[in-house]
Amino acid sequence: MTTTQAISQQIHSLRSLLQGIESGFLTTINEDGSLHSCPMSMTGEIEDDATLWFFTLTSSHKVSEIEQHQQVSLNFCVHEKQIYLSLSGTASLVQDKNKLREKWRPQLTTWFPQGLEETDLSLLKVKINKAEHWENSSFTPQVDFSCDLSKVSRN
Amino acid sequence: MTTTQAISQQIHSLRSLLQGIESGFLTTINEDGSLHSCPMSMTGEIEDDATLWFFTLTSSHKVSEIEQHQQVSLNFCVHEKQIYLSLSGTASLVQDKNKLREKWRPQLTTWFPQGLEETDLSLLKVKINKAEHWENSSFTPQVDFSCDLSKVSRN
Repeated sequence: MTTTQAISQQIHSLRSLLQGIESGFLTTINEDGSLHSCPMSMTGEIEDDATLWFFTLTSSHKVSEIEQHQQVSLNFCVHEKQIYLSLSGTASLVQDKNKLREKWRPQLTTWFPQGLEETDLSLLKVKINKAEHWENSSFTPQVDFSCDLSKVSRN
Repeated sequence: MTTTQAISQQIHSLRSLLQGIESGFLTTINEDGSLHSCPMSMTGEIEDDATLWFFTLTSSHKVSEIEQHQQVSLNFCVHEKQIYLSLSGTASLVQDKNKLREKWRPQLTTWFPQGLEETDLSLLKVKINKAEHWENSSFTPQVDFSCDLSKVSRN
């Protein structure tokens, strides 16, 4: 199997794991070096280049944190299935109106009532470099799945 | 209300929120600056000095990360109740045998089959400095609860 095929399979596995998950935690590094997390709503599937997208307010604190430190982690848990998924990556702010339109979903009005008319609206593009997955009650220290996506080409 | 009373109330609220939560994600800073998370099993309630304890293998990667960077975050979610809880703090390794005995619970044998006989067993002491809490479906950007515990005296 080539590296490209292996990565494609890993992305496919990640996409399956994330299926049905509606929210997770995004952790960022604060100005004082402390770690700061907040829940985020999912916006579509993980893309073929290992990218996940999230809507955010441009003025939110996490955006200023990401401008200083691009490193983030994303955590997802589905207690009833005993699934724990941890993703590491780098985040960047995207304000391109076409991309916002492409990624927008009507259910996001719950969090952003003005929708695409919200002038403070942006996207966070999170490029996943590493994924780890635990899928049973004995999650420590067993790792059932782990992949390195740092070789995925950026589009 | 004095600062001490206010902090005591905040710890009490946090203890209630954490009630029944069996596991969460611990996020640490890797040697290369990337963020790394893993699920952790709860070990008792949050203490009056805003400390949470977790058992770990001393040889685990997160321990070497914490030796370099003490800053950690802890995330908990209870999807059915739409509760999202994010804690920021600092972690340190504790290998005192008396403390290990004090914190040990029989159900931890799921993850550490040899129990207190496990020679690689340690405790992570996490001192919580900040807590944020979201408790409904419109979790962005609404914060229903937030407290600064950095003034809690260390025992």
